Amino acid sequence: ERDKYENNDVAGVVTGLAWTSVGGDILFIESILSKGKGLSITGNLGMVMKESATIALEYIKANAENLGIKQRVLDEYKVHIHVPEGATPKDGPSAGITMLTSLVSTFSQRKVKSKIAMTGEITLRGKVLPVGGIKEKILAAKRANIKEIILCEANKKDIEEIKESYVKGLKFHYVSEMKEVLEIALTKQKVQNAKKL
Amino acid sequence: ERDKYENNDVAGVVTGLAWTSVGGDILFIESILSKGKGLSITGNLGMVMKESATIALEYIKANAENLGIKQRVLDEYKVHIHVPEGATPKDGPSAGITMLTSLVSTFSQRKVKSKIAMTGEITLRGKVLPVGGIKEKILAAKRANIKEIILCEANKKDIEEIKESYVKGLKFHYVSEMKEVLEIALTKQKVQNAKKL
Amino acid sequence: ERDKYENNDVAGVVTGLAWTSVGGDILFIESILSKGKGLSITGNLGMVMKESATIALEYIKANAENLGIKQRVLDEYKVHIHVPEGATPKDGPSAGITMLTSLVSTFSQRKVKSKIAMTGEITLRGKVLPVGGIKEKILAAKRANIKEIILCEANKKDIEEIKESYVKGLKFHYVSEMKEVLEIALTKQKVQNAKKL
Amino acid sequence: ERDKYENNDVAGVVTGLAWTSVGGDILFIESILSKGKGLSITGNLGMVMKESATIALEYIKANAENLGIKQRVLDEYKVHIHVPEGATPKDGPSAGITMLTSLVSTFSQRKVKSKIAMTGEITLRGKVLPVGGIKEKILAAKRANIKEIILCEANKKDIEEIKESYVKGLKFHYVSEMKEVLEIALTKQKVQNAKKL
Amino acid sequence: ERDKYENNDVAGVVTGLAWTSVGGDILFIESILSKGKGLSITGNLGMVMKESATIALEYIKANAENLGIKQRVLDEYKVHIHVPEGATPKDGPSAGITMLTSLVSTFSQRKVKSKIAMTGEITLRGKVLPVGGIKEKILAAKRANIKEIILCEANKKDIEEIKESYVKGLKFHYVSEMKEVLEIALTKQKVQNAKKL
Amino acid sequence: ERDKYENNDVAGVVTGLAWTSVGGDILFIESILSKGKGLSITGNLGMVMKESATIALEYIKANAENLGIKQRVLDEYKVHIHVPEGATPKDGPSAGITMLTSLVSTFSQRKVKSKIAMTGEITLRGKVLPVGGIKEKILAAKRANIKEIILCEANKKDIEEIKESYVKGLKFHYVSEMKEVLEIALTKQKVQNAKKL
Ligand SMILES: [Ca+2]
Ligand SMILES: [Ca+2]
Ligand SMILES: [Ca+2]
Ligand SMILES: [Ca+2]
Ligand SMILES: [Ca+2]
Ligand SMILES: [Ca+2]
Ligand SMILES: [Ca+2]
Ligand SMILES: [Ca+2]
Ligand SMILES: [Ca+2]
Ligand SMILES: [Ca+2]
Ligand SMILES: [Ca+2]
Ligand SMILES: [Ca+2]
Repeated sequence: ERDKYENNDVAGVVTGLAWTSVGGDILFIESILSKGKGLSITGNLGMVMKESATIALEYIKANAENLGIKQRVLDEYKVHIHVPEGATPKDGPSAGITMLTSLVSTFSQRKVKSKIAMTGEITLRGKVLPVGGIKEKILAAKRANIKEIILCEANKKDIEEIKESYVKGLKFHYVSEMKEVLEIALTKQKVQNAKKL
Repeated sequence: ERDKYENNDVAGVVTGLAWTSVGGDILFIESILSKGKGLSITGNLGMVMKESATIALEYIKANAENLGIKQRVLDEYKVHIHVPEGATPKDGPSAGITMLTSLVSTFSQRKVKSKIAMTGEITLRGKVLPVGGIKEKILAAKRANIKEIILCEANKKDIEEIKESYVKGLKFHYVSEMKEVLEIALTKQKVQNAKKL
Repeated sequence: ERDKYENNDVAGVVTGLAWTSVGGDILFIESILSKGKGLSITGNLGMVMKESATIALEYIKANAENLGIKQRVLDEYKVHIHVPEGATPKDGPSAGITMLTSLVSTFSQRKVKSKIAMTGEITLRGKVLPVGGIKEKILAAKRANIKEIILCEANKKDIEEIKESYVKGLKFHYVSEMKEVLEIALTKQKVQNAKKL
Repeated sequence: ERDKYENNDVAGVVTGLAWTSVGGDILFIESILSKGKGLSITGNLGMVMKESATIALEYIKANAENLGIKQRVLDEYKVHIHVPEGATPKDGPSAGITMLTSLVSTFSQRKVKSKIAMTGEITLRGKVLPVGGIKEKILAAKRANIKEIILCEANKKDIEEIKESYVKGLKFHYVSEMKEVLEIALTKQKVQNAKKL
Repeated sequence: ERDKYENNDVAGVVTGLAWTSVGGDILFIESILSKGKGLSITGNLGMVMKESATIALEYIKANAENLGIKQRVLDEYKVHIHVPEGATPKDGPSAGITMLTSLVSTFSQRKVKSKIAMTGEITLRGKVLPVGGIKEKILAAKRANIKEIILCEANKKDIEEIKESYVKGLKFHYVSEMKEVLEIALTKQKVQNAKKL
Repeated sequence: ERDKYENNDVAGVVTGLAWTSVGGDILFIESILSKGKGLSITGNLGMVMKESATIALEYIKANAENLGIKQRVLDEYKVHIHVPEGATPKDGPSAGITMLTSLVSTFSQRKVKSKIAMTGEITLRGKVLPVGGIKEKILAAKRANIKEIILCEANKKDIEEIKESYVKGLKFHYVSEMKEVLEIALTKQKVQNAKKL
């Protein structure tokens, strides 16, 4: 049994797409702030997936102003990232854009767009890189009631190889820059009960 | 020989349900405060179970006000979590709600409800996720003289598959949010000899 | 050749009972204070046995007042725990009450009762849990000239299964709470040349 | 499918040459600054490749004045180095001059020369050492639309053994000192939107 | 070829006895002070041998006054312990009294007695415990021109089993307390060029 | 192909002799200072070789005055040691005197003698110990155009066993104390462009 999309009421919860040994699935990236310093990560993650969280946070710290995030918030809060379903080991770089979106949502308390999912590697210079398992991930997204998907431009060819009826009803966003991801995935609205930062 | 429920006189002691290679059993999550900072964990626990403690604590730190926990207490005390029976290795995410309840009881010195046990994974956004081994855990709870059980809504179907006579005398609470767990499992009363915080 | 009981002139030296691959034996838990912070542990101990030391110390820090230990002493001193015979690897939770007694003796400089030994797991909520290898441990205690033994109430049945002549001359104390252990094992007297704390 | 050269608009992004089990490829070294202290590294790198980053940074700290880098910038900023494509493990000392160039570009915000790539080990005393896999690396550079390549003087003989038509259109710079690398690879210009340091 | 005794001009150099797979040998324990805090250890030592250094230092810190060591020296200096011949892995508790003697010599700058060697485990409560390989160690000591040997009282029986002609010319000191070791092994004299502490 | 001696213009670069599975070779020890505290080490080194760097630094800190090194320099600078050719794993204690010489050269900015190489283990008490592979190391030194070699007195017998024509043109210095190494290997001159310390 696969996961379903859940609503976007809480800051920092973003839907990613995973490709596991039993096929595609969606996963959720969650992040949360508390007074303190640094980054902690849970969710039975491998080294490469943990590195994605570090890359996302370093990118945000270096580009805080452009991202509309206050330096003071970065200085005074500790961020914790979690990927639920602790019984399942997870790894790889493909949750990069999902982690970035989660962190920006949490630091700005901006609402994540409804029924959107994403998969893509991130770089320090702001590029989005292609990832594997696209077909399986797309089918999982559809089953989970996702309506829009963000992918790397370089993954467009993988979508074009999928039978048209399978992708019907899905809207694809192809991006090459991380800032495009944020423009598409984050609304201008704050979440209800936004944390005062 | 299996464990029996013990009384709820002490803050931070909560009964969980475990599924081991020799069948179901109850386990106790204990937590305790001392002057200082941070979190320490003992009990021969695997990485995923240790992560549950971190998730519970980060959730509490981010939602302290809503949970009726003073920021000052979080700042000035170190919390230690222990799961007895050190000879038995333990792992998995299913003690999440038990750890959360233990920590909230300890930080608030609220009394845990009598003869209640629970099993469920927690997330940073406050959801409860389903876990495995439900049938074995329920039978163990009954043997241990437990009267009420908290489970994830999504585990209801596992209870419905159990022969009715086996679950007779047990009251089930199905939840999807972590705050429901706390409302059910924690009384408004402080424990006797509550620590002055 | 087995160890013999040694006198109780020094604070923090307590006799435990161990069950090894070559049968039962007594072991000594030693602890000592120096100016500083924290806990260090030596003696070729496995992870679970090291955890016992942490549990004992956290319990003491949380219950210092009831145990007659000054908060100032806990703040200003570092405690080191050692289990002699470094060539022998040791593990398991059964030295818990021995470590607790050693630490309380050291922090209070109270004298340990003469010719007493003990074995039992400890919990954060102050309970004593039963342990294995009771028969072998009792025989070792007798050979070592021990006169009194503290065991968990739940280990009583193991004693009742031992041939009466084997336990003749030994006095057993069955306990279920950690404070009972301390009442039995520690005298009101300070050790000679007690450290001024 | 192999990587292509990308433009040089961002400080700290430098093109290296890698030799993997499936042949030569280009790789990018990225670095970025944020307020803080120290060095962090991501990209699924082995120990020797991580050591290259440390060597480069220690060299820069010891020679800051000569390199035109302000001591204050080294004191007040943390640098993060990332090598994209987290799914691929990477190791070896050959990215040394690429990491050095990336760090100097980031600390000075100087623009990297267009369409240049490099490979070579670095030393603390400022020498460039030869590396292996030159032929495969050169072919990869050509496919990726690179026009200039920096190599160790001692690798010249490896180029001379390559069929002339293969290296046509490529300009080679043979160096023995790390300062030569920086003179060739970094322009005097600052990048657009240079970070104010 | 075996080691020979060397002179005792330098504080902190003490001769121990080792029993290796190729027979007995002498070894040297060296210690040295520098401004700072803590303990560091080198010499290709296993965990149990490193623990001996920790036990010795904790014992000294707890008994500084009785040992004639100034608290100020313990507070202001870092001590480094080294056991030469890094190519040979070393382990076990038997260098305990040698490490203790080395540290006390270093902290007090007292001269070590000439041509003396020792072997024995130490405890936190100040006892010396017996060790193995006595015969091989004694023969090595004789070959190395050692004249006096300190052993645990409980190792006396091992000496009595050695053919008399083998131990001729050696003077044995049998001890049960660590303070006896120090009385025998350390002279009242300071070393030449004693460090001003 | 083997390494060649390079000039001695830079402080802290010293030539050692290594014995690897493919025969003897020279290696370079480099060290460098930057504002800060402590010691870091790179070069794909094993534990024993890293320990040599620690021993050398502790010896220098304890004997700073005698070595003509200012306490202030030790307090205010961090030292980094690197051994080039990161692709080759290196281990063993034989680079001890080379590391010591490198560090003293760096801390004092004294010039290293030209065309000299060395191999020998160091101790905390200032002795030089013999090492293995002497014949292979000497042949490598000759190939590399080295003219003088420092060895432990106890390695003299290894040289006497080498055919005379092989060692022709090489001058040997046999030492037993670390201070002899420094007297032979370091000139009184400062390096050109000496760092102002
Ligand atoms: Ca799932
Ligand atoms: Ca994803
Ligand atoms: Ca149980
Ligand atoms: Ca549970
Ligand atoms: Ca024993
Ligand atoms: Ca015990
Ligand atoms: Ca690639
Ligand atoms: Ca490269
Ligand atoms: Ca030897
Ligand atoms: Ca010894
Ligand atoms: Ca070489
Ligand atoms: Ca060497």
